[in-house]
Amino acid sequence: MQPMPHQLMGYDRTITMFSPDGRLLQVEYAKKTVRQGSTAIGMVCSDGVLLVTDKRVIDPLIVPESVEKIWQIDEHIGATASGILSDARVLIERAQVKAQQHRVTFDSPIDTVNIVKDMCTLKQICTQSGGLRPFGVSILVAGVDDTKPILFETDPTGIFFEYRASVIGEGEVEVEDILHKEYKPELTIEEGLKLCLKSLKKVLGDKFVVDRIDAVHIKTSDRKFVRFTQEKVEKVAAGIKDVKSKKK
Amino acid sequence: MQPMPHQLMGYDRTITMFSPDGRLLQVEYAKKTVRQGSTAIGMVCSDGVLLVTDKRVIDPLIVPESVEKIWQIDEHIGATASGILSDARVLIERAQVKAQQHRVTFDSPIDTVNIVKDMCTLKQICTQSGGLRPFGVSILVAGVDDTKPILFETDPTGIFFEYRASVIGEGEVEVEDILHKEYKPELTIEEGLKLCLKSLKKVLGDKFVVDRIDAVHIKTSDRKFVRFTQEKVEKVAAGIKDVKSKKK
Amino acid sequence: MQPMPHQLMGYDRTITMFSPDGRLLQVEYAKKTVRQGSTAIGMVCSDGVLLVTDKRVIDPLIVPESVEKIWQIDEHIGATASGILSDARVLIERAQVKAQQHRVTFDSPIDTVNIVKDMCTLKQICTQSGGLRPFGVSILVAGVDDTKPILFETDPTGIFFEYRASVIGEGEVEVEDILHKEYKPELTIEEGLKLCLKSLKKVLGDKFVVDRIDAVHIKTSDRKFVRFTQEKVEKVAAGIKDVKSKKK
Amino acid sequence: MQPMPHQLMGYDRTITMFSPDGRLLQVEYAKKTVRQGSTAIGMVCSDGVLLVTDKRVIDPLIVPESVEKIWQIDEHIGATASGILSDARVLIERAQVKAQQHRVTFDSPIDTVNIVKDMCTLKQICTQSGGLRPFGVSILVAGVDDTKPILFETDPTGIFFEYRASVIGEGEVEVEDILHKEYKPELTIEEGLKLCLKSLKKVLGDKFVVDRIDAVHIKTSDRKFVRFTQEKVEKVAAGIKDVKSKKK
Amino acid sequence: MQPMPHQLMGYDRTITMFSPDGRLLQVEYAKKTVRQGSTAIGMVCSDGVLLVTDKRVIDPLIVPESVEKIWQIDEHIGATASGILSDARVLIERAQVKAQQHRVTFDSPIDTVNIVKDMCTLKQICTQSGGLRPFGVSILVAGVDDTKPILFETDPTGIFFEYRASVIGEGEVEVEDILHKEYKPELTIEEGLKLCLKSLKKVLGDKFVVDRIDAVHIKTSDRKFVRFTQEKVEKVAAGIKDVKSKKK
Amino acid sequence: MQPMPHQLMGYDRTITMFSPDGRLLQVEYAKKTVRQGSTAIGMVCSDGVLLVTDKRVIDPLIVPESVEKIWQIDEHIGATASGILSDARVLIERAQVKAQQHRVTFDSPIDTVNIVKDMCTLKQICTQSGGLRPFGVSILVAGVDDTKPILFETDPTGIFFEYRASVIGEGEVEVEDILHKEYKPELTIEEGLKLCLKSLKKVLGDKFVVDRIDAVHIKTSDRKFVRFTQEKVEKVAAGIKDVKSKKK
Amino acid sequence: MQPMPHQLMGYDRTITMFSPDGRLLQVEYAKKTVRQGSTAIGMVCSDGVLLVTDKRVIDPLIVPESVEKIWQIDEHIGATASGILSDARVLIERAQVKAQQHRVTFDSPIDTVNIVKDMCTLKQICTQSGGLRPFGVSILVAGVDDTKPILFETDPTGIFFEYRASVIGEGEVEVEDILHKEYKPELTIEEGLKLCLKSLKKVLGDKFVVDRIDAVHIKTSDRKFVRFTQEKVEKVAAGIKDVKSKKK
Repeated sequence: MQPMPHQLMGYDRTITMFSPDGRLLQVEYAKKTVRQGSTAIGMVCSDGVLLVTDKRVIDPLIVPESVEKIWQIDEHIGATASGILSDARVLIERAQVKAQQHRVTFDSPIDTVNIVKDMCTLKQICTQSGGLRPFGVSILVAGVDDTKPILFETDPTGIFFEYRASVIGEGEVEVEDILHKEYKPELTIEEGLKLCLKSLKKVLGDKFVVDRIDAVHIKTSDRKFVRFTQEKVEKVAAGIKDVKSKKK
Repeated sequence: MQPMPHQLMGYDRTITMFSPDGRLLQVEYAKKTVRQGSTAIGMVCSDGVLLVTDKRVIDPLIVPESVEKIWQIDEHIGATASGILSDARVLIERAQVKAQQHRVTFDSPIDTVNIVKDMCTLKQICTQSGGLRPFGVSILVAGVDDTKPILFETDPTGIFFEYRASVIGEGEVEVEDILHKEYKPELTIEEGLKLCLKSLKKVLGDKFVVDRIDAVHIKTSDRKFVRFTQEKVEKVAAGIKDVKSKKK
Repeated sequence: MQPMPHQLMGYDRTITMFSPDGRLLQVEYAKKTVRQGSTAIGMVCSDGVLLVTDKRVIDPLIVPESVEKIWQIDEHIGATASGILSDARVLIERAQVKAQQHRVTFDSPIDTVNIVKDMCTLKQICTQSGGLRPFGVSILVAGVDDTKPILFETDPTGIFFEYRASVIGEGEVEVEDILHKEYKPELTIEEGLKLCLKSLKKVLGDKFVVDRIDAVHIKTSDRKFVRFTQEKVEKVAAGIKDVKSKKK
Repeated sequence: MQPMPHQLMGYDRTITMFSPDGRLLQVEYAKKTVRQGSTAIGMVCSDGVLLVTDKRVIDPLIVPESVEKIWQIDEHIGATASGILSDARVLIERAQVKAQQHRVTFDSPIDTVNIVKDMCTLKQICTQSGGLRPFGVSILVAGVDDTKPILFETDPTGIFFEYRASVIGEGEVEVEDILHKEYKPELTIEEGLKLCLKSLKKVLGDKFVVDRIDAVHIKTSDRKFVRFTQEKVEKVAAGIKDVKSKKK
Repeated sequence: MQPMPHQLMGYDRTITMFSPDGRLLQVEYAKKTVRQGSTAIGMVCSDGVLLVTDKRVIDPLIVPESVEKIWQIDEHIGATASGILSDARVLIERAQVKAQQHRVTFDSPIDTVNIVKDMCTLKQICTQSGGLRPFGVSILVAGVDDTKPILFETDPTGIFFEYRASVIGEGEVEVEDILHKEYKPELTIEEGLKLCLKSLKKVLGDKFVVDRIDAVHIKTSDRKFVRFTQEKVEKVAAGIKDVKSKKK
Repeated sequence: MQPMPHQLMGYDRTITMFSPDGRLLQVEYAKKTVRQGSTAIGMVCSDGVLLVTDKRVIDPLIVPESVEKIWQIDEHIGATASGILSDARVLIERAQVKAQQHRVTFDSPIDTVNIVKDMCTLKQICTQSGGLRPFGVSILVAGVDDTKPILFETDPTGIFFEYRASVIGEGEVEVEDILHKEYKPELTIEEGLKLCLKSLKKVLGDKFVVDRIDAVHIKTSDRKFVRFTQEKVEKVAAGIKDVKSKKK
Repeated sequence: MQPMPHQLMGYDRTITMFSPDGRLLQVEYAKKTVRQGSTAIGMVCSDGVLLVTDKRVIDPLIVPESVEKIWQIDEHIGATASGILSDARVLIERAQVKAQQHRVTFDSPIDTVNIVKDMCTLKQICTQSGGLRPFGVSILVAGVDDTKPILFETDPTGIFFEYRASVIGEGEVEVEDILHKEYKPELTIEEGLKLCLKSLKKVLGDKFVVDRIDAVHIKTSDRKFVRFTQEKVEKVAAGIKDVKSKKK
């Protein structure tokens, strides 16, 4: 009847509660946090997997090389996030420990999906137990298992899906549209990077500068997490129309 | 007197509370979550048991083979769910561990009903203890015990029943109607699959495409959890009038 | 003064609280849940003890034999319930474990009253401790100790009494009236079953069908929990005027 | 100013709270529960101690011998209660265990006062700690220590006093009046029983029937908890004017 | 501005909270409980220390000798209380255990001040931790350490002071006035008893009877907790004008 | 807009909460408690350190020598407090234990600052964790480390500073003013005592009497906690104009 | 619609809750606390790293040398804070212990970033778990790892960034502006100190006095935490126009 009856009646004041229409409002609000985060893109390519993200940090007093929005979880797995960064760090550090433990215990690299499942179990707990809020972050996890490049997206609920290409954060709608039209599994990592940069250019408009970009690839051939150099990103960006290569 | 007096008086703000007319409102709201979930059908057939579900995922960027809405719990047991998927995963993974433990301890496959009972015990606890919300998910569990195909449905309360054929999720009313009219225990798995696809076609209408379907059978003869190939599903669907075989 | 002042003032919002007139409202609401449950009857007979219950399940897709509303606790003890079924299952499974432990420890069957006392201790705790709601279920426990058939009724408070004949659930008022008039300790199990069926016919009216009935007896002679066959129930029901023997 | 200001301001919503005038309202409400309970009388006599109580159960379907409102704690100690019966059972069973432990540890019967002190410690805790409600029950504890018959009354607060004769429950005011006038320490157990029955007759009026009475004595001579037979109670009751000996 | 703004705003609903003017209202309400308790007086005399209290119990059915409002903590230490008696018992029993432990560990009597400090530590905790209410009781602790008679008063806050003479409970104002005028350290125990009885006579007026009085002394000469006989109290009371020596 | 919006909106109802302008209101209210406490002064002098405090106790029935508002923590460290005295005692006793443990473990006296840090860690915890209120007390800690007299002030937040001279409690504003004008590090302990007494005279006015004063010094020469005798205080006070030397 | 709807609806009353627009209001309020704190500046210079802070303490009774707003964490790491000082101390002492443990365990100095990560993990926990408020403090951590001077800023969320130069507290906006214009990595520590003092002069205006300044450097050459002497600060400050060198 009146606008916002559920909120007025307090169904969203604690996570352990359903609203009368069967929704978990606190989880929905956490998803809004993600949609306000910086844009991050993941992509499975013909020769590996790619993560590209807007670092959103433009303060020249910050050491740019130090700002990583893409974290290495193991030699062959990386991740990026959108939402509350300190929430992301908790999940990433837990994943790093899990990967390390797997190597020590089984003397082999962990499968990417196991990292994702463990992360999502913790996320789910935070949507069901009192005294904890849900994690306000979505995470893209990319890896190469044996010879297969693979990409997952996890949301605050603890749900995950395997994607060919995926985008999270404020640019989600615009970039998804581009990916639907232009993404093809045949793209090489370099072609994929170009498509990602073009997409971020679309989202950021005039605010797009190469300094804001963090990009990582893991090739099928060597299964190594490798960060693109600033030069490489600039070179690829130079091939896109209207892309500024440097902050002014 | 006024509409919604119980809600206004707060009887639904915590799970550990009865309303003056003896209802547990939070549990009722959790059931609404299930009724908004994707449709899933289970069916006991003359030669085994069958689970068919709408994956509801249509984003072409998602890897379709990776989207499983039917999970293997043990060689001879499978399950599907409707409601909050991350809640389902918690229950499924617990069931997988329980099945594995049984094999290790007793050197024999676990009975399907024991998986169901364990799942429902946890579900019940979440309706009685403070600081936890009920699981917002119904689960169909199907298995073959010795030579008997068997199917159970569990709801958020932790109640379960053995069914000949059952449906959960948004299509519940429509599909139940079809099952009441057309289900017969003599149906073979293949005939059952056809009936399920026809039912989902009725629910989804134009949105029905074969890509959305996940289907699994466990035959009495070999007691193996087997996922239908896309081709098989298409072939069976082709036999139903008005069924589109491919997304456009 | 105004209607419902206690409710408006919140005395029923948490179990660990008395209302100003010395009542525990949450416990009273739990009792209402029981009064909305399906009807269940227990009866001490000359040759044993009897439990008869309305399964209330009429969906033909449910496997009728699988629906048990009367559970075996030990060889010589059974129980039935009215109210929240998943609450009942928690109490029944606990009772089964307790009976089994007694056999292992003392190499003899447990007395029925000990099962009842243990069940009621847990029920009482849930009426006094914060963070837990009371169990929304009444349970009839029937057994044969040595050569004595015995029947107990427990309520959500954790109170129990020994009965000659007892009824719980929606039909309580009507059936109690019949029992007061027609129950005699001299009744045999078969005569008792007839009286129970007649009572349920009264409560259910047109909805009474033999398929809905679950019935169990434990004879003094062999102390074995035995479920009546569908045929036996039909045969006895046939002797009652106006009783339909089959669903249409 | 306005009526019931403390209640309206919420000072009685949790036990761990004083009202501005220094009262613990939840404890006071618990005492009201007791005053609505069935009447129970205790009496120290020249040759032992006596407990007499109204069982209040009149349903002919209940097994009358099974209804005990007076419980044996040890060979030489008994107790009866008024208020929430399931609360009483928790305290009684704890007392039974304590008495048994004393026998095993010290090879001698426990003193009655120690049973009382232990019971009251638990009662006090429930008036001071959050998350627990006070026990809604008063208990009369009677015993013979060495050659001394002794009687205690405990209330929901955890306070206890030693009494020559005491009454709790709905008949408190009327029976106390009779005791003040007619009780003498020289009364024998049989004379005491007569006085108790006469008192209960006064309280219950037409509802008084011998079947409702439970009565126990512990003699100084043998220190044994002995329940009066129905016949004995009837015989003594027969000596009182206007007392009906049987339910109709 | 308006009367009682702090109460209306809820600053007194939980103990772990200051009001905006820096007060702990729950503690202040607990002190009111004490001021409604029965009057108790302590006095250091030339030859020992004295505790005299109004038992307030006048029901002739209570065993008068059993009603102790003055408890022995150790051979050389006693205590009396005003406020919630069951709260007092918790503190007294803890003190008795502490004194006993000291004797066992150090083979010497504990100093009175150590008993007091331990009691006050627990009292303070109950004013600072959530989930506990403050103790609603003030306690006078009297003892003889070596050859020094000593008297302490503790309040619900957990503060304590050493007194020459002190009074707690409903008669505080009146008796304090008398003590200020008439108390002298040179008083012998017998003279002190007379002064205390006179003070209680003043407070109780017509309700003063010797049966209500409990009185204990600990002499410097023998350091023994000794309860005055009823006879002795009567004899001393007889010396006071207008004092009734017996209940009617 | 309206007065007291933050209070009305409940930001001060639990300590674990910031108000929208970034304040912790419960901590601010605790500081008000301190400002209503009795005045206490600390002073570093040329030959040691000095603590002087108003005992505020004037009841002649209290044993004056027993009232200490200045506590010895170790041979070379003392402390005084303003605010809730029972809170102070908890902190002081913890400090005494800590000092003793240091002596036993390291065979040397603890540094004053370590006592202060430990005290403040506990104070901070009580401003951040739910279920605990902040300590309502400020404490002056004075000691001589090696040959250095040293003085610290701690507040309810858990902040501490080293002071040359400091005052807490109701006289804070007035005495601080005097200290700013007249304190010099060259003052001897005796001169410092005179300045403190003069300051307290200013605060207390007519209520100033020597009996209310507690004063302690620790000299650099011997590092011993020494309480001034009543005589010494009187003698020094006699040198101040208008100071009454005795209560009337 | 109306001003401050989220606050009125209570989304900021507990930390474990998102507002409907996806914000954590308690964390935002904690950041306001920081913005009201005293100004602190960190700077990476050509020959080391520098921390300069306003002590804000001007009471001449406080021992100025004792007031440190810059704490040594290890030989080669220091930190300063803005916000709630007692919160800062908890984090600093934890960091000191962590650094010490690292030296003992690995026999080498800890990397600055590890100190920062550990601090931020604790900060994040306090934004997600019920019963704890977020830390109301931002911290600058400066160190020299091997030969690299390094500077981090952490906020109440638990986010951290590596900075070339950074400012926190009330002067943030003004000083950041100066740093953007005048900071260059080529600055020596001495030149950096001059720039910091000039910035603080700008913020504090007339209130700027050298006594309020605390300044520390860690040189790349010796990796030692060294506090500037008052003389050095004065000398450098003297080189800035309009800077007063002494309080009046």
